[in-house]
Amino acid sequence: MACVHNARRSFMRMLFTMMATALPAATAFAAGPIPADLREKALATFKALPSTTPAVANNPITPEKIALGKALFFDPRISASGVLSCSSCHNLATGGDDNLETSIGHGWQKGPRNAPTVLNAVFNIAQFWDGRAEDLKAQAKGPVQSGLEMANTPGQVIATLKSMPIYAEWFNAAFRGEADRVTFDNLAKAIEAFEATLVTPAPFDAFLNGDDGAITSEQKQGLALFMEKGCSSCHSGINVGGEGYYSFGLIEKPSTDVLPENDKGRFSVTNSADDSYVFRAAPLRNVALTAPYFHSGKVWDLKQAVAIMGTTQLGEELKAQEVDLLVAFLNSLTGEVAEVVLPILPAETATTPRSALQILGK
Amino acid sequence: MACVHNARRSFMRMLFTMMATALPAATAFAAGPIPADLREKALATFKALPSTTPAVANNPITPEKIALGKALFFDPRISASGVLSCSSCHNLATGGDDNLETSIGHGWQKGPRNAPTVLNAVFNIAQFWDGRAEDLKAQAKGPVQSGLEMANTPGQVIATLKSMPIYAEWFNAAFRGEADRVTFDNLAKAIEAFEATLVTPAPFDAFLNGDDGAITSEQKQGLALFMEKGCSSCHSGINVGGEGYYSFGLIEKPSTDVLPENDKGRFSVTNSADDSYVFRAAPLRNVALTAPYFHSGKVWDLKQAVAIMGTTQLGEELKAQEVDLLVAFLNSLTGEVAEVVLPILPAETATTPRSALQILGK
Repeated sequence: MACVHNARRSFMRMLFTMMATALPAATAFAAGPIPADLREKALATFKALPSTTPAVANNPITPEKIALGKALFFDPRISASGVLSCSSCHNLATGGDDNLETSIGHGWQKGPRNAPTVLNAVFNIAQFWDGRAEDLKAQAKGPVQSGLEMANTPGQVIATLKSMPIYAEWFNAAFRGEADRVTFDNLAKAIEAFEATLVTPAPFDAFLNGDDGAITSEQKQGLALFMEKGCSSCHSGINVGGEGYYSFGLIEKPSTDVLPENDKGRFSVTNSADDSYVFRAAPLRNVALTAPYFHSGKVWDLKQAVAIMGTTQLGEELKAQEVDLLVAFLNSLTGEVAEVVLPILPAETATTPRSALQILGK
Repeated sequence: MACVHNARRSFMRMLFTMMATALPAATAFAAGPIPADLREKALATFKALPSTTPAVANNPITPEKIALGKALFFDPRISASGVLSCSSCHNLATGGDDNLETSIGHGWQKGPRNAPTVLNAVFNIAQFWDGRAEDLKAQAKGPVQSGLEMANTPGQVIATLKSMPIYAEWFNAAFRGEADRVTFDNLAKAIEAFEATLVTPAPFDAFLNGDDGAITSEQKQGLALFMEKGCSSCHSGINVGGEGYYSFGLIEKPSTDVLPENDKGRFSVTNSADDSYVFRAAPLRNVALTAPYFHSGKVWDLKQAVAIMGTTQLGEELKAQEVDLLVAFLNSLTGEVAEVVLPILPAETATTPRSALQILGK
């Protein structure tokens, strides 16, 4: 695995060096015509979103499971305080994230990294900035138990859910045939099922699917430039990123506010020196809605984020017009969230454990 | 398992038989006939919810204003931190409140009083436990500016909204013809318009409207008892409360955890000694969803809350069966929230002021 990674990295470095020398051509392109084979090139690199909810591993998706997952996603009672739900940091009204540098959790503690969007997250190779959760069901268990986030325990979550008979009914419907239905594993699976529905088709998808008028000519130029400059070497596939791990600062380290020294990214997962300051390439769908940028959340302006990528990953100071075209392309990745009707959650009962706020008398 | 169930059922049956013989007085009433004129009596005291959105004073309600108000209601960027929205404490998924003793606000500060439900609040005589806001548009301005809640300023809120062109469009559509449209007053009016739609018809309304089968015979007995005991002297009208101000502890003071000495209620509004420990009678629609109870939020069990009302307001220790019947009636006030589709909020722009979290570097 490490070998493959290393080989890949050497190749990427070579590629970027080659590209750096090819710079003048790219500049000429910005004002030039749109390649006739733009869609073919794009289809070799990217993939349109499916029109139906994608399947996920080891978790058959059913309407009952989606409905349960939606309720759990919006339920603050799965946090120790009774204040925070998944939607607190992954707000579907604001691009599937919280528009904060880093999130605010239990006791108003500030988290260590910027909250990634939950929109289209089902297509990422793994979850979190460092890929430490292999899928959304593994991811869902993290924040619930993190002392910085929901600060709860699986036992307390399940006791809370079991105290509300309607939840038991919903778990029964979603996990029919299982001996023990109201479990922390099933909670995570239900949340994954709901999140798998959060797929946001964008003008870019319509273009990939054959509609020439779906994106503007600036967006087409931006798309061509995105591929030509090498952005798509890392930001490729169905999520325009989210498919692999790359060193942040491959050519030139960004400033320490953008890349704080104490967060070594994937190193904390693999303990491999090669993974120091390595992060999962950000998936770029809906990027225009998800400022601030990078795992540190220090950059609020998408143009500035693109320029930083130019210097740190491509070793190139992008021209203002190039940045504008790239941002135009990125805007074509802003998709439509399917209507989400707010769930009506089960009422608490006399046996519902009281939140940590009451217990602590805080 | 089946055995345990059967055993339990037999035991319960025996228990009920014993209770039936052991409680002659209450049973006499409970088992007695339901007054033939129950509906007429109820209609003299209560009023069914209207089937359309009610009008509010000085604020014509339009679809554009409702849509804008819904967006504002769900937008955390009207708080200084960018973390809290109206829906944080008035969660439409959990009965229009937050199911906490008192709410958690800016910096995880704990508020002084239990958050009242926003459902049907449009029908209250005035807003807040002490009635200090004459209507919902006056109320809406409070939490935004409270240092304990959203900790923002009108100027900062308006600068935030004006930085997002889509908000300007929405304000223009909602307040067409006005010279200055994106104002704090108009924000409050839009939120009031949305909140006026949060009307929840319940089985009790169907009964008032002539459907005898809409509520159970226990609920009918509870309703008769509610009027006979005098509960409806304060809890009357369209919201089964919320129409007048009454001393909490009229006959007997409740314990100081339920009625803390330092919160004198409406006294802080009028400075009249007569208003010491006077509060607006709680509107009881959806009361089964809005534990914990009273302004102090110290009582989690609705039965216990009813019993406390008996001793403090009626000077009477209610029998267990009476409490059960009253709670049965209260359950008939649980209504249906019309479907709320989560709004998609405008994206921030380069000119959007950054939240206090970023400014303070907290």
